[in-house]
Amino acid sequence: MTITQEAPLQAPSRTPTHNQASLIVHGRDRTGIVAAVGSVLSKHEANIVSLDQYSDNPHGGAFFQRTVFGLDNLKAALPHIDDDLKARLGTGFELEFRLRDLSIPHRVAIFASKADHCLLDLLWRHRRGELPITVAMVISNHPDTAGEVRAFGIPFFHVPSAGPDKSAAEAQHLALLKGNVDFIVLARYMQILSGGFIAEVGVPIINIHHSFLPAFIGAGPYARAKERGVKLVGATAHYVTEDLDEGPIIEQDVVRVSHAHTVADLRRRGADVERDVLSRAVLWHSEDRVIRHENHTIVFA
Amino acid sequence: MTITQEAPLQAPSRTPTHNQASLIVHGRDRTGIVAAVGSVLSKHEANIVSLDQYSDNPHGGAFFQRTVFGLDNLKAALPHIDDDLKARLGTGFELEFRLRDLSIPHRVAIFASKADHCLLDLLWRHRRGELPITVAMVISNHPDTAGEVRAFGIPFFHVPSAGPDKSAAEAQHLALLKGNVDFIVLARYMQILSGGFIAEVGVPIINIHHSFLPAFIGAGPYARAKERGVKLVGATAHYVTEDLDEGPIIEQDVVRVSHAHTVADLRRRGADVERDVLSRAVLWHSEDRVIRHENHTIVFA
Amino acid sequence: MTITQEAPLQAPSRTPTHNQASLIVHGRDRTGIVAAVGSVLSKHEANIVSLDQYSDNPHGGAFFQRTVFGLDNLKAALPHIDDDLKARLGTGFELEFRLRDLSIPHRVAIFASKADHCLLDLLWRHRRGELPITVAMVISNHPDTAGEVRAFGIPFFHVPSAGPDKSAAEAQHLALLKGNVDFIVLARYMQILSGGFIAEVGVPIINIHHSFLPAFIGAGPYARAKERGVKLVGATAHYVTEDLDEGPIIEQDVVRVSHAHTVADLRRRGADVERDVLSRAVLWHSEDRVIRHENHTIVFA
Amino acid sequence: MTITQEAPLQAPSRTPTHNQASLIVHGRDRTGIVAAVGSVLSKHEANIVSLDQYSDNPHGGAFFQRTVFGLDNLKAALPHIDDDLKARLGTGFELEFRLRDLSIPHRVAIFASKADHCLLDLLWRHRRGELPITVAMVISNHPDTAGEVRAFGIPFFHVPSAGPDKSAAEAQHLALLKGNVDFIVLARYMQILSGGFIAEVGVPIINIHHSFLPAFIGAGPYARAKERGVKLVGATAHYVTEDLDEGPIIEQDVVRVSHAHTVADLRRRGADVERDVLSRAVLWHSEDRVIRHENHTIVFA
Repeated sequence: MTITQEAPLQAPSRTPTHNQASLIVHGRDRTGIVAAVGSVLSKHEANIVSLDQYSDNPHGGAFFQRTVFGLDNLKAALPHIDDDLKARLGTGFELEFRLRDLSIPHRVAIFASKADHCLLDLLWRHRRGELPITVAMVISNHPDTAGEVRAFGIPFFHVPSAGPDKSAAEAQHLALLKGNVDFIVLARYMQILSGGFIAEVGVPIINIHHSFLPAFIGAGPYARAKERGVKLVGATAHYVTEDLDEGPIIEQDVVRVSHAHTVADLRRRGADVERDVLSRAVLWHSEDRVIRHENHTIVFA
Repeated sequence: MTITQEAPLQAPSRTPTHNQASLIVHGRDRTGIVAAVGSVLSKHEANIVSLDQYSDNPHGGAFFQRTVFGLDNLKAALPHIDDDLKARLGTGFELEFRLRDLSIPHRVAIFASKADHCLLDLLWRHRRGELPITVAMVISNHPDTAGEVRAFGIPFFHVPSAGPDKSAAEAQHLALLKGNVDFIVLARYMQILSGGFIAEVGVPIINIHHSFLPAFIGAGPYARAKERGVKLVGATAHYVTEDLDEGPIIEQDVVRVSHAHTVADLRRRGADVERDVLSRAVLWHSEDRVIRHENHTIVFA
Repeated sequence: MTITQEAPLQAPSRTPTHNQASLIVHGRDRTGIVAAVGSVLSKHEANIVSLDQYSDNPHGGAFFQRTVFGLDNLKAALPHIDDDLKARLGTGFELEFRLRDLSIPHRVAIFASKADHCLLDLLWRHRRGELPITVAMVISNHPDTAGEVRAFGIPFFHVPSAGPDKSAAEAQHLALLKGNVDFIVLARYMQILSGGFIAEVGVPIINIHHSFLPAFIGAGPYARAKERGVKLVGATAHYVTEDLDEGPIIEQDVVRVSHAHTVADLRRRGADVERDVLSRAVLWHSEDRVIRHENHTIVFA
Repeated sequence: MTITQEAPLQAPSRTPTHNQASLIVHGRDRTGIVAAVGSVLSKHEANIVSLDQYSDNPHGGAFFQRTVFGLDNLKAALPHIDDDLKARLGTGFELEFRLRDLSIPHRVAIFASKADHCLLDLLWRHRRGELPITVAMVISNHPDTAGEVRAFGIPFFHVPSAGPDKSAAEAQHLALLKGNVDFIVLARYMQILSGGFIAEVGVPIINIHHSFLPAFIGAGPYARAKERGVKLVGATAHYVTEDLDEGPIIEQDVVRVSHAHTVADLRRRGADVERDVLSRAVLWHSEDRVIRHENHTIVFA
């Protein structure tokens, strides 16, 4: 048996985000962006920890950059740097950028239904210090997981579904969420969100769903995958848009299955993939590693 | 660098198929099948090398069994055992079975177009002794790979496509194939086979195609996968049926990609998966490891 | 977002083990074993649900067989069948076999230390109905996880380690375990078990440990893996023998990492693999899918 | 079957390297590097296509940066930019850098023995346009693959091994290689290279070897892996150093195996992983994506 004396598992996150800030720059590619961003950061003696950059076409395509820098010896406060970036990037380059102090965790609401595998996995990881977020609340259309959620010290709100008219439930959701969360995670939440809700809530929404090769859209996907004899079961995490399950993909993974697996087995193996894929998508989003562009994402993972 | 003295890579196949036979039994599940099959084989002192069995429902579901046994000390010739099995399984149990001397390789025709990755990989594996088949011929609608195929000592036939009417080309195909092959492999063959051809040729046909999560059916799948930002690129090997790309799946696999991959990269990574998946499907089929049932397969790999 | 109406995730296990029994047969291979076993089961009208068999050499090698059959219409009680098998297999064939009613779950003790990822994952899967076991107790050399374990309704015993002399602690372990458990799981238990304890407790012990390509044995494996720049982090579940970490492997898996991952990241990704690999090993062992032979395993998964 | 009309597979490489240059910067991390590099490139109106950067510790750790930029509208020749970088980075920052015109392919020698799987895979990929290299020669201690190599139009040199004294063979190798190649690939070359040779030849050497969890060092690794019942077989590509198989890892991967696989099967599945892993290592090295540092690598893949 293992007796290696490692540091405890509740170790610091990949990017020790205390005293660090991230800068996302995004826009039409052109010569000189890198030097311009670099000169602003250099002027304030920002010590760059990591820098990732991607251009889908250097001749006028889309440009994406993520810079993480330390705040320790910084010669200016973040708002001051923000002003400098605005002056330097906003006018000449017409770039969008966002600057964020990574030591301030994103506030997150998790939506769930009856299935608890994705929900509990996120709460566990959060308690272990794996996710740099604050779980502000869990909202569910079923009361089943209330006890478990509250055992983590996290508020649980039961907002029942009431048939096809979602307006009352969504009004309750908005009352709970507005001003309180920076993004939402649908952890196997089995209700459709209306376009109106998505627009009104105004924060990114991450969803997880099963996925197959080939896809089985609609009811009973696992049963149909079994009929077709698929050899892989997968999951896809994506941003929610009005187009059902068609939003930008953040992360995907699969697991092997065989003819000997029942439909219930496929669903269970699928659940294992779902929780892993969703947790990676939440981690990357909360570390500002994901940039949306058209209907896809740039992930600097 | 490595200096381990291993046996050469051209080592014998997983099932040393010389002096072995396989027996596939398939039908409605009921009590006593195992004992009945076992008693026939035992009577002739067949030494069972491996036995795999699966039932999708023990109460009258479908039953599948693959037995491999040695021919060395067998007390009867295979046709004699075949008769015994017919007497024992055919009447009381209404089972189908097929008995095959594994030392007689399947004869295979490979269909290809311009892309050579799947074709060459099969020919090279065959030469290494990895595939217990005889490659009877390669048929292509393009002349491009003729030289390479013939360098392997394998006949190459160029049968050009001539627009939407495939009847002339398919007549040529049938003339080449009839009586000469036990199964057909479409190694990125970019032409549709007609239902009439599939019925007339009368042997199993294995195809390989790309696959994605979610699926992108129709033209330009890699370009559309890129637009959606997929994180996995896959391939599916399946038996060809009249329903385009909807036949029983034999094998699938995927490889990770990222936003930094171009459409050409996706296609190339996809090609790597395609050749691996297709070679496994061909191996398993040629070792009688795959049983078709309704629209799926049982794979005793 | 997803709205597919699947059956709940707390679905029945892969082998609906109620009213089923498993028969493991194991010994020197020879002609006629399959027929002999089949005839005993057939005599009692056992409906065979699945049958897996493997021989590492049909000419006198080792033979392994796992049969699952239904108890519904059985014409005899299990002890009666056991007697018949003893008469038929024990004398002529010198085979070992074990017959087990799968509806009686194995009783399991889980040993843990401070890290909770494997422990909680097992308890949660058990509550979901994924593992056909009874968790009889959790034993830990640290009190940290007591509250969480007891929240699952499972007894928690704190047996502190007391330096190099383990005899007092192991005596306490034995007092708790003897007669109460069918196997033990070391869920990241960071203490060495003595050879005396392993012999005395007399039940299989499953351990999980990290693993790398190449291996980094001894202290600080993750730090050393980082220094060498490994691209994969893995985990191995194995049976515990007196040879530290050298027992028969049950299951392994890996996850990709990159130079951008810190030692803490490697450890965390490793933890994800550990819990998945351990849960599969526990599932397969509890379903009698694993047969130990010399220093390896046959896994009919 | 598939009828999608994709562009041909012989598509351009991931980074269309014509008219592009790569700049690798490497040294002790400090504030201002990014701005300094950016300002030199910006001054000459270099259009940056991609930029990856990593620091293992922003407070005086090691800094790594890879920039790819277009040469189309460049306002200076590369040597001029090289001078500017030398002036800007060499003195104040004590950084090392290398600038390279990516349209000039690396010249590569491939060393092989009897096994052809890695060798042929590299030659295929090269012919398909997947690898931006020139294969200058193949050197083998066995004549077996001469015909196949020459069919690709590539020189083949047979330099037999002559027992433990490698000095004569290595002198031949050096005579062939000196001045003619930019790096060497050992494609399952089964001879040890002496430290003197490695130093004298003066170019990077990439090797591929099998790898397992746990590692089986020394003779007969596959046989010993089989005895231990491993469930994964892997391969590791690394730079060759004087420490046998202990050089910096470039890439690794694994494939699943089971108890039913023979030693020959493990070796064959291993061969599939080896060729894939080696080809990725060669691709990344030839695109200047790999930076060696101490005993590991930074791979901007």
